[in-house]
Amino acid sequence: MSWLDLPADSGFGLDNLPYGVFSTRGTARRTGVAVGDRVLDLVAVTGDSVHATGSLNAFLARGPRAWAELRGQLTDWLTDAAHRGAVEPHLVPRDDVTMHLPVAVADYVDFYSSQHHAENLGRMFRPDSAALTPNWKHMPIGYHGRAGTVQISGTPVVRPAGQRKASADDSPTFGPSQRLDIEAEVGFVVGMPSELGQPVPLAAFGEHVFGICLVNDWSARDLQSWEYVPLGPFLGKSFLTSVSPWVVPLPALEAARVRPPARDVRLLPYLDDADAEPWGLDVRIEVRLNGELVSCPPVDLMYWTPAQQLAHMTVNGASLRTGDLFASGTVSGPARDQRGSFIELSWGGTEPLPLADGTTRTFLQDGDVVTLTATAPGTGGGRISFGEVTGRVEPASPP
Amino acid sequence: MSWLDLPADSGFGLDNLPYGVFSTRGTARRTGVAVGDRVLDLVAVTGDSVHATGSLNAFLARGPRAWAELRGQLTDWLTDAAHRGAVEPHLVPRDDVTMHLPVAVADYVDFYSSQHHAENLGRMFRPDSAALTPNWKHMPIGYHGRAGTVQISGTPVVRPAGQRKASADDSPTFGPSQRLDIEAEVGFVVGMPSELGQPVPLAAFGEHVFGICLVNDWSARDLQSWEYVPLGPFLGKSFLTSVSPWVVPLPALEAARVRPPARDVRLLPYLDDADAEPWGLDVRIEVRLNGELVSCPPVDLMYWTPAQQLAHMTVNGASLRTGDLFASGTVSGPARDQRGSFIELSWGGTEPLPLADGTTRTFLQDGDVVTLTATAPGTGGGRISFGEVTGRVEPASPP
Repeated sequence: MSWLDLPADSGFGLDNLPYGVFSTRGTARRTGVAVGDRVLDLVAVTGDSVHATGSLNAFLARGPRAWAELRGQLTDWLTDAAHRGAVEPHLVPRDDVTMHLPVAVADYVDFYSSQHHAENLGRMFRPDSAALTPNWKHMPIGYHGRAGTVQISGTPVVRPAGQRKASADDSPTFGPSQRLDIEAEVGFVVGMPSELGQPVPLAAFGEHVFGICLVNDWSARDLQSWEYVPLGPFLGKSFLTSVSPWVVPLPALEAARVRPPARDVRLLPYLDDADAEPWGLDVRIEVRLNGELVSCPPVDLMYWTPAQQLAHMTVNGASLRTGDLFASGTVSGPARDQRGSFIELSWGGTEPLPLADGTTRTFLQDGDVVTLTATAPGTGGGRISFGEVTGRVEPASPP
Repeated sequence: MSWLDLPADSGFGLDNLPYGVFSTRGTARRTGVAVGDRVLDLVAVTGDSVHATGSLNAFLARGPRAWAELRGQLTDWLTDAAHRGAVEPHLVPRDDVTMHLPVAVADYVDFYSSQHHAENLGRMFRPDSAALTPNWKHMPIGYHGRAGTVQISGTPVVRPAGQRKASADDSPTFGPSQRLDIEAEVGFVVGMPSELGQPVPLAAFGEHVFGICLVNDWSARDLQSWEYVPLGPFLGKSFLTSVSPWVVPLPALEAARVRPPARDVRLLPYLDDADAEPWGLDVRIEVRLNGELVSCPPVDLMYWTPAQQLAHMTVNGASLRTGDLFASGTVSGPARDQRGSFIELSWGGTEPLPLADGTTRTFLQDGDVVTLTATAPGTGGGRISFGEVTGRVEPASPP
């Protein structure tokens, strides 16, 4: 119970308390925590300059004990009416703030952990082969993306130009992408670094990962399909990756943790989570195109958990840095209305998606606005919100 | 002519003046410039605190006019004997300094720009397909690597563990890499950032790129070959990438600029350098295994130039940050003794390389030391040196 007047369904109750970086007219970027429809200014309420650095990184680098301590304090301050006088002046209406990229991203890795998505893409990109590559059930496949183009929700999505080649053509042509797409994902923010040469086992996930956000990994499918053999996606992805402003700390997800799907092959010991604490997550994403709900991708069906992704990413001795971001890969369920990309929703453009206004859509058009939201069961009995990540497609720049 | 006693063949004459970050017993990391067998302490000689930040980034962010101005000053100070008294006390013997990572690496991209290397790897990794993928002659193929594991020369190369699967096996096994390899490359350091959405054309290369270093992109071929389809190399590369301590500024390479090889297909306009200033580079790398010269990869034969790599990397609107590092990909020439990796030198392990001591080598053994050095024609008539990047293979960590 809070002395704040929080509606039961706000999604930003005391069981959430996500962190972000905000500014107001006249104040520099600082860390805040979302509570109901307000933001608690952590610089003002704690007096700790770590929250005035313009990103969460310095606070994250303090490690899990500091994270737990502050979360305990915030809960206390927002629960015990004795603190009301000291705290309430530092609650700013969320409508009055500008949100910024919460984390200075160190390395960005994108996984490919939904079996349904991987099978769908495999069928479309490699119709003459098995839908899943032979390695897929043995390891969480992933690749490094461009950290420098990870941007805050709301950043305009300028349609990228590049090379693409239709199979009937002899040589590639150049121009704006004709197959601009989304990838609805969840992202995991690393707080505590690790040493070069020291793998991070499954059980240490919570010691390194601070929290979770939403990720839209915008994708130009025509650029991607022409470039990606043999070294993987590059310009088809690197123009923009959007993240939600609020990072939900792991303890807020205690009630959302579920067992991942049953495994079809025996996993190597470093990935075998049969006897481990489960890190499947019962998070439901909603994908809206120009306000219309078009898909509800279910994170709980992801084959690989973020703990497995982290264990895999470091098993070769690769080190972690504060601010590393790794994302799940497109979240897709088995049903059509659970697919997390338009290439799946429209089956490569061959089955246009009917919209409420009577039109259809295959890939994104200029002016389209795509918004991802998500919720998960909170520890308070209701659902917690991840806020949103949104972007509007702008026409390609003139050459 | 310098008032310094510089031997004609030092490789670090006044036509080179490369930048690095060093410390001595008792002094913190600072920027220095290599001159002969000494390092000029830029904090002491310029009094500018930008050189005391522990990386080149803050200086690089000042842009090409500032780079040219300092290079002009350094040349003046080291040429005109009137400055001797003020400068000489700040020259430290190179043997007395410890070198550090010169740049805080923002994003790291690795290209694949040697036709000979790409054809060799294609034949070995995809024996049933054409050696070059259909896109290869149309664009410089590249991918993002792990910036957080780019380390300074001398960092121990701990043999990575991971999954690998022999074609005869049903499922993968886990253990230390049995095919640890090198990739001899040159790397390009971005100084000036670019705006999101603004491609950097071929002609703007020199406005953004500050200089060049040596790169050894250590590779675990068994991990790589099992993981890399469909999203490209990941753990087979991310355990370590080593760079040389000295960044050679572009003006030092004026005499090394050459036309790249003739192009076999017509390039799209953003990559067409037929009428552009050439950015092929007559740099000769030498690869030594335990002191023995085993290969001399020729950079001038690279099909794609760094200017084309930069134009391609940004043509989709991806922005650059100060500290971005992009590397050429393995440099290999047509002759066996010009191949820049052991997988090529030993043809996938089937043709062991004979060594002077009567033994042979396929992939790297624990205790092996690999050192890359390189030189290029300087503007002074001799050759300039890139210094070296070296690493010793250490046994895998116990599981």
